[in-house]
Amino acid sequence: MRPIITLTTDFGLTDGYVGAVKGVILRINPAARIVDISHHIPPQDVFRAAFVLRTATSYFPDNTIHLAVVDPGVGSSRRAILLKADNQLYLSPDNGALTHILRRPGPKTLHQIENQNYFRPRVSHTFHGRDIFAPVAAHLSLGVPPEDMGPEIDDPVLLNIPEVTRNDSQLIGRVIYVDHFGNLVTNLTLEEVVSFAGGLEIRTTLDDGLSVTGVKSSYTEVAPGEYLVIFGSWELLEISKNLGNAAAALGISPGLGVTVTRMKQ
Amino acid sequence: MRPIITLTTDFGLTDGYVGAVKGVILRINPAARIVDISHHIPPQDVFRAAFVLRTATSYFPDNTIHLAVVDPGVGSSRRAILLKADNQLYLSPDNGALTHILRRPGPKTLHQIENQNYFRPRVSHTFHGRDIFAPVAAHLSLGVPPEDMGPEIDDPVLLNIPEVTRNDSQLIGRVIYVDHFGNLVTNLTLEEVVSFAGGLEIRTTLDDGLSVTGVKSSYTEVAPGEYLVIFGSWELLEISKNLGNAAAALGISPGLGVTVTRMKQ
Amino acid sequence: MRPIITLTTDFGLTDGYVGAVKGVILRINPAARIVDISHHIPPQDVFRAAFVLRTATSYFPDNTIHLAVVDPGVGSSRRAILLKADNQLYLSPDNGALTHILRRPGPKTLHQIENQNYFRPRVSHTFHGRDIFAPVAAHLSLGVPPEDMGPEIDDPVLLNIPEVTRNDSQLIGRVIYVDHFGNLVTNLTLEEVVSFAGGLEIRTTLDDGLSVTGVKSSYTEVAPGEYLVIFGSWELLEISKNLGNAAAALGISPGLGVTVTRMKQ
Repeated sequence: MRPIITLTTDFGLTDGYVGAVKGVILRINPAARIVDISHHIPPQDVFRAAFVLRTATSYFPDNTIHLAVVDPGVGSSRRAILLKADNQLYLSPDNGALTHILRRPGPKTLHQIENQNYFRPRVSHTFHGRDIFAPVAAHLSLGVPPEDMGPEIDDPVLLNIPEVTRNDSQLIGRVIYVDHFGNLVTNLTLEEVVSFAGGLEIRTTLDDGLSVTGVKSSYTEVAPGEYLVIFGSWELLEISKNLGNAAAALGISPGLGVTVTRMKQ
Repeated sequence: MRPIITLTTDFGLTDGYVGAVKGVILRINPAARIVDISHHIPPQDVFRAAFVLRTATSYFPDNTIHLAVVDPGVGSSRRAILLKADNQLYLSPDNGALTHILRRPGPKTLHQIENQNYFRPRVSHTFHGRDIFAPVAAHLSLGVPPEDMGPEIDDPVLLNIPEVTRNDSQLIGRVIYVDHFGNLVTNLTLEEVVSFAGGLEIRTTLDDGLSVTGVKSSYTEVAPGEYLVIFGSWELLEISKNLGNAAAALGISPGLGVTVTRMKQ
Repeated sequence: MRPIITLTTDFGLTDGYVGAVKGVILRINPAARIVDISHHIPPQDVFRAAFVLRTATSYFPDNTIHLAVVDPGVGSSRRAILLKADNQLYLSPDNGALTHILRRPGPKTLHQIENQNYFRPRVSHTFHGRDIFAPVAAHLSLGVPPEDMGPEIDDPVLLNIPEVTRNDSQLIGRVIYVDHFGNLVTNLTLEEVVSFAGGLEIRTTLDDGLSVTGVKSSYTEVAPGEYLVIFGSWELLEISKNLGNAAAALGISPGLGVTVTRMKQ
């Protein structure tokens, strides 16, 4: 089967950058199949790139190659890395974008990418997506083994991911992501919430004041424009607005605290 | 030939949602070819999704599978449906997105999608695109027959599409769509206009006051910034602004009335 | 190997236009591989389309077919053209979008596209992307020779590209492009700058007043929010803001003058 290479970048789609990356890959391996995940990561937003990778890449077939380039340090001494995990390969600047993949259980190997034989002959200061990551991904898709790309390393850069804290009466987390629909995704898992509350009889309070009672299983269980709490696609607690954009309406960005209490204390 | 699966969603391209859908499809059928139609349907805008499907899907080869997920009712009791029409397959929540396809002449069969054998093992409350529509589309692309997905039904949800009315001196329609360029697309067909006016000697008046005489065959027939009437890509009457955005300049949204009269009454 | 057809348009991704083009191509040649370069060229912005083509297309394999449709003159008497250059094919309205490709050294042949046998049976006034360029590209991908599309021509429309001027103490160019990150790309090449200054000991001054000393090789060599000069992906001088958007911060559009002087005069 022809190899799949996915792309996740902050390049946007108004320039020729994405086209250049695709061209470089296809010239080296014309049989590669390129799949766009996103080119609309906000510029330099490594945290968001990490979350998008977490929520998209694991569904792909074995041997998929994921190229993730959000690269504020391009041209500096930051390393380029290649991770093998869950029978998939990930290429990225070493800036934390692979944090969630690295934190998953299971065997992993990590290599620094430094074998210039697989780079474009002339590497620019500003576009390693085209000059390093694309040709390396294409050569990997031709069967070059990961260990040919450079030495194994074990000290990748990791993002500081907020942890959930818990006391007798409260489970305290954070909004970690705001999606395209304005849903406020928190770091509170279904498992943690059920373990804490013995079920879903909970009250959820955002640090800005909004408080929502109970958990729904469909947006339509509340009236249009009303807020609700729902466990979303990743079994994380989300605060949403039926037929509306909760983040825009409330003016909320990732980082805000959120507290869960039992309805009957 | 490898099967084609097209995607039309309101998921946007800033999150991992589209990537997850693509991954699920490719893991089940690595030979599938995924073609993006649009992921920029405005959130929950089923009416716009219906128009995009109307104007894009019929050009594809026989046996193309069209996955259309704009799904404000996800998680509720709204049905998931599978339509066979014009030798193509369409999957969608049962919310009217297939209205234009259903109204076309020709044989059709419609099934409710309910066979959980073809779903992901755990179906979320909020992301049936990943958990139901993607795996069902992938299995269809492997040759599973539509009737395996669920019972035949004949009562799909249909959108209320505005009709054209006509009297001796007027043909009265509506703006039904505003495109990316700001063109105001109406529901007045070339055939209806010619039948009414005996040709194209017409005056077109928008309910907000703008009146345009005649019909052009190129934007460049008027000066930059001037308004014109032209029959566009779907042989529908459109009001446009040469080298400009008519909808933005006039502040017009779908729904506005438009009246055609004969130039010589 | 299955033929590659790339797409560069100003169609946006909120309508069915791109889907229609893809469908038309795949119905004629189901084996074609369609690669999106950009559908976000600003409406009617031929200058920007030309730059995107310049920076993306040359990386693709031999025999790639590039379809570029930014077409303010659709429906008028403007010609449709087919260019063979660098073992690749380019289709476009004859409006200057191929200017940079045409100005490259090397053998080229240029044909007018006028053989209606390869068009859709009914050509609309407003959507030659679907009705002419897509079917012609698809037939070329099936092996129809370029000369079957129409007569050879030698007078394509060319954009007026600003030239660099030079005197004893100054190298004077222009901002010719602003990218998605807000980088101000000028028409000053690395070669010209080094030839003028005998190295990279330069001062760069924008006509709006900003002056930057020296040249960096990574954005991170200056503090966050500071301006720098760097030779970017195309070896053109660029003015950037580390972790910021220079164009937005300075309110700058393409066309602004930029002057390079030697640091030690």
